[in-house]
Amino acid sequence: MTHKIAILGASGYTGAELVRLIAGHPNMEIVALSGERKAGMAYRDVFPHLRHLDLPDLVKIDEIDFANVDLAFCALPHATSQAVIRELPADLRIVDLSADFRLRDLDEYEKWYGKPHGAPHLQPEAVYGLTEFYREKIRAARLVAGTGCNAATGQYALRPLMTGGLIDLDDIVIDLKAAVSGAGRALKENLLHAELSEGYHPYAIGGTHRHLAEFDQEFSRVAGRPVRVQFTPHLIPANRGILVTVYVKGDAEKVHAALADAYKDEPFILTLPFGEAPSTRHIRGSNYCHIGVVADRIEGRTIIVAALDNLTKGSSGQALQNANLMLGEVETAGLMAAPVFP
Amino acid sequence: MTHKIAILGASGYTGAELVRLIAGHPNMEIVALSGERKAGMAYRDVFPHLRHLDLPDLVKIDEIDFANVDLAFCALPHATSQAVIRELPADLRIVDLSADFRLRDLDEYEKWYGKPHGAPHLQPEAVYGLTEFYREKIRAARLVAGTGCNAATGQYALRPLMTGGLIDLDDIVIDLKAAVSGAGRALKENLLHAELSEGYHPYAIGGTHRHLAEFDQEFSRVAGRPVRVQFTPHLIPANRGILVTVYVKGDAEKVHAALADAYKDEPFILTLPFGEAPSTRHIRGSNYCHIGVVADRIEGRTIIVAALDNLTKGSSGQALQNANLMLGEVETAGLMAAPVFP
Amino acid sequence: MTHKIAILGASGYTGAELVRLIAGHPNMEIVALSGERKAGMAYRDVFPHLRHLDLPDLVKIDEIDFANVDLAFCALPHATSQAVIRELPADLRIVDLSADFRLRDLDEYEKWYGKPHGAPHLQPEAVYGLTEFYREKIRAARLVAGTGCNAATGQYALRPLMTGGLIDLDDIVIDLKAAVSGAGRALKENLLHAELSEGYHPYAIGGTHRHLAEFDQEFSRVAGRPVRVQFTPHLIPANRGILVTVYVKGDAEKVHAALADAYKDEPFILTLPFGEAPSTRHIRGSNYCHIGVVADRIEGRTIIVAALDNLTKGSSGQALQNANLMLGEVETAGLMAAPVFP
Amino acid sequence: MTHKIAILGASGYTGAELVRLIAGHPNMEIVALSGERKAGMAYRDVFPHLRHLDLPDLVKIDEIDFANVDLAFCALPHATSQAVIRELPADLRIVDLSADFRLRDLDEYEKWYGKPHGAPHLQPEAVYGLTEFYREKIRAARLVAGTGCNAATGQYALRPLMTGGLIDLDDIVIDLKAAVSGAGRALKENLLHAELSEGYHPYAIGGTHRHLAEFDQEFSRVAGRPVRVQFTPHLIPANRGILVTVYVKGDAEKVHAALADAYKDEPFILTLPFGEAPSTRHIRGSNYCHIGVVADRIEGRTIIVAALDNLTKGSSGQALQNANLMLGEVETAGLMAAPVFP
Repeated sequence: MTHKIAILGASGYTGAELVRLIAGHPNMEIVALSGERKAGMAYRDVFPHLRHLDLPDLVKIDEIDFANVDLAFCALPHATSQAVIRELPADLRIVDLSADFRLRDLDEYEKWYGKPHGAPHLQPEAVYGLTEFYREKIRAARLVAGTGCNAATGQYALRPLMTGGLIDLDDIVIDLKAAVSGAGRALKENLLHAELSEGYHPYAIGGTHRHLAEFDQEFSRVAGRPVRVQFTPHLIPANRGILVTVYVKGDAEKVHAALADAYKDEPFILTLPFGEAPSTRHIRGSNYCHIGVVADRIEGRTIIVAALDNLTKGSSGQALQNANLMLGEVETAGLMAAPVFP
Repeated sequence: MTHKIAILGASGYTGAELVRLIAGHPNMEIVALSGERKAGMAYRDVFPHLRHLDLPDLVKIDEIDFANVDLAFCALPHATSQAVIRELPADLRIVDLSADFRLRDLDEYEKWYGKPHGAPHLQPEAVYGLTEFYREKIRAARLVAGTGCNAATGQYALRPLMTGGLIDLDDIVIDLKAAVSGAGRALKENLLHAELSEGYHPYAIGGTHRHLAEFDQEFSRVAGRPVRVQFTPHLIPANRGILVTVYVKGDAEKVHAALADAYKDEPFILTLPFGEAPSTRHIRGSNYCHIGVVADRIEGRTIIVAALDNLTKGSSGQALQNANLMLGEVETAGLMAAPVFP
Repeated sequence: MTHKIAILGASGYTGAELVRLIAGHPNMEIVALSGERKAGMAYRDVFPHLRHLDLPDLVKIDEIDFANVDLAFCALPHATSQAVIRELPADLRIVDLSADFRLRDLDEYEKWYGKPHGAPHLQPEAVYGLTEFYREKIRAARLVAGTGCNAATGQYALRPLMTGGLIDLDDIVIDLKAAVSGAGRALKENLLHAELSEGYHPYAIGGTHRHLAEFDQEFSRVAGRPVRVQFTPHLIPANRGILVTVYVKGDAEKVHAALADAYKDEPFILTLPFGEAPSTRHIRGSNYCHIGVVADRIEGRTIIVAALDNLTKGSSGQALQNANLMLGEVETAGLMAAPVFP
Repeated sequence: MTHKIAILGASGYTGAELVRLIAGHPNMEIVALSGERKAGMAYRDVFPHLRHLDLPDLVKIDEIDFANVDLAFCALPHATSQAVIRELPADLRIVDLSADFRLRDLDEYEKWYGKPHGAPHLQPEAVYGLTEFYREKIRAARLVAGTGCNAATGQYALRPLMTGGLIDLDDIVIDLKAAVSGAGRALKENLLHAELSEGYHPYAIGGTHRHLAEFDQEFSRVAGRPVRVQFTPHLIPANRGILVTVYVKGDAEKVHAALADAYKDEPFILTLPFGEAPSTRHIRGSNYCHIGVVADRIEGRTIIVAALDNLTKGSSGQALQNANLMLGEVETAGLMAAPVFP
């Protein structure tokens, strides 16, 4: 059976990544692609790397007949998603890639995103889309909220450590290095090649990055107590990849054992042998996440390093993995391609 | 039916690319990987981006039981291939990725490669591996010689123009821009990141690049008369991609029509609409080749631009496409993945 | 004696490059920096790499007291320059970096730039700023028109060959590879890091790039007959640098001798030994231009390669060199810094 | 008065950077350049970006007449420096860029570098070359030991905080991001463009990097008690630059005030306004170091970020600054060039 798929907001990088992945899926067919400003354009003129595919032209959302759609991916900008999704059919399966349905607490949403939630009645049914930890809920969900790409990476490194007294929950530093595609295709001066190439720097430093809201929500929920982490992202001159270097206080071997155990049956989360650290070049273009644990020379200090591709496992790959669950497909369908190196 | 595959010289980039592609092939199983200097190592320690795959460890070639192999890819250094292949079973199907069997004329081989051919008795049965132009011979071949990656790109741009008086065969300039992975994983000063990043320059300038031997052989053969082109490659700070800008004298619309017609049924060679030019970013990591034709402002001058990924369509993807033909598989099996952008 | 300098349009890359160079000049003081949209900002907030310098804040042009200015650099957008300069004091020395005064023929200007010239009465006094070939006129000029960065590079490679029958003037191909800073700090999708990094492609292909107007004007003038060249620029994933590969018909040794002779006393134009080719990494950040000549394997075909930094020798360095001449300074003052490598 | 300068080990990146800087020094003349393996070569053939300079050819060290040398820079590999320097004239002024004389404690040297010190009798007179903190000793020194580039960056961020109870000395995390030129021109697989470009990863993780020996020595010395920091370097796909993100426990405003006060008269160390963070692109190619301090959202946690160019302020620029002091020159001579951006 072939599922009919719509991608709303298909003119950005996560939209294009969805198209790329779905092109290799055995049981999905793209029946609609939306892009408000580029409506009417052939998709190959927006993303020429996909010119070999037979795809529908871009349309406006209100031109789509959702009766003919089994599942819609929403790769729209933050805040737009809420406004769009609340108008979609109430029984349509939706995987949202924006930040709009990630936070359960409406006040937290307003605090971090600076405006009231635009679809508060839908928030209760939204399932947080970190597949490995919400698998059964996602399988049953109608609306899944994709995680922040940084938030996903940090959680893969830390989530299994939030219980059992393995680490000091009040002293966690997440130093993150992000490639530039995570910022999207927006026209911003600091994303120009001439600005970014050959340079790197922190941004949203001091605890102001919005993905902290997800860390706070999820870590506190798992730990059963408030958890506040330090989180400093850096922009790196590369196109794909997120690497987190996490500094915790706890026994390195126990930390490694807990992570290895948590992910031992996961198809995409690979725990490296103790003492090895991953690199972003080894996960590029794929849905895999590599995690390593190393003991610091100082007794009781441990470093966890996790790497994934922000466009794949960090957003569109995760979205497809969740869609597979929602549609009763094999969870890994369309997602098993190996990383591209060099 | 699953074909048993050996990859000789699996510790270089083209070897790793073969593994990456074959991992997505429905009917191939890798049963042996060789690497003389790294024999004994787990493949994931040589190429950690493939650590999720269940692969045999690297061995020396003489440890492989070829009775258990249906087809061997040889991704060995130039000259080594001849020495290895002449010792392999005489009925073993082989796709060679080196330069060792590309030139039919043994004297030409010696002239360009500086030493006598090491397996002259095998040369007559070797089929030149430019799939689209040798398809039927490849289907029936035992030994296929993969083309040079630069030579493939130039031929895609020019080969259909060698007959019919479309262009002046005595005045062809191929200005080529190559990414660095084409130079392999060899330790050379000019391949260091600090040397290459942010800089670009010609190399093998003046008609000394060995891929000229292939241009000479193939263009002359097709044209039925000697053809000598100018060819200047440049090294560009990128990892994957070859772009040729070809300057010819002939009518642009006729040139476009000839190319579009030649490739109209090809799954991987896409002719762009007249007046558009391709970019390497749109074929990265894939087996696709994009070709564009533009008329110069000067009457009767035409520019042809072709782009492909040197590691995929330029070598390992071509090799797999040829292996599919030799084994009776669907020609495109394992090769349909879309380019990775950004 | 210290010359008082104003830089109009100081918020772009060429403006910042002027500030960088002038900071090392013994006899110049920057007294005004303009930036219409960023007026009021401290310069260090626009270009933090210059935060160690004591500079005036950005102002609007009409806030500048030009009675207190000895020379103004105009690094304004094309078309804006004409409108601004026609309102400046008629005796103010001006070095313009835009395209606005490069073309002597007003019809040619209108043809290539799509609108009538905005200051036709000033055009006759404008001197084309290719220093090495207009040195005496520049020394006496009030208004100097900086050349296009691509146009400068191509002219260094070819200009001395336009007379004496050295090459076939009807068969010249300039294949140019440009780094991205030449496109300026404008917000364009194709200049984003995620779009450009790891990819390269031609643009303005087919003879539509505006710098062709300069080639036509200058080459025809020197040759004493119409000369039309082919010119295809490519965008390369690097920040600084232009490399031209020029294909001509003529004797390589004679071509080399003519270039070596033309530049033998020039401080910034270095002719490499016969058979060597330059690289952009070897001129980065400097005012030097390296030129090499190589004989093709085909008798009578010659390849000329020239490399310079588009922001320095291609625009702001050239501008300062010209200003030195106009002000009676040592021509090389502020310009002798060695390239930055790696 | 012109000082006669020798550079031993001039064929590596720090040697070339010394030549580049000294070329702009008003009172220094390079009289000898050594390179054992490349002896006899013209310097322009080793570093073509310096081809415009009139320089002596490379020679072997024992060919140099040191009676004619006022000061020698030693840019030799670790361990080689000790063997060479012990044979040089006992009254020759030397600035060593290697690790060989950085550690006062011979046992510590042996522990971190794996072999006994090769010139223990010279170690007592060696002055640690962190200019801003050893200025008077350097002025009087005969032998100055350049610091590690990473060690310098971390110390600029932290050294003024080691006293006065400003931060918790037992809980310091230094997360460092280093560009690739710091690894030198050595032929290593992980330094190849194809390996490094588009990827980033930690190395020497867990407290094994040798620059930790310098942190231990210097921080403990200043604090008057043992201080052990956590230090994780990462390799970033860029050519120049080091950025440290330092996590400390202490009041952010007091930390900022202490740093601003410590560096208020320094020509090269710039403290940014409170709350701002630096970027490597803003110090590239220069001797400047930018430092920023930001308060974390968690009370009592502070983030310090420092950026410098590893080849300039991190090694060769520091070396020239120290040589200026030793020779009675203006400390900043040859070092005031602005960063190159973009």
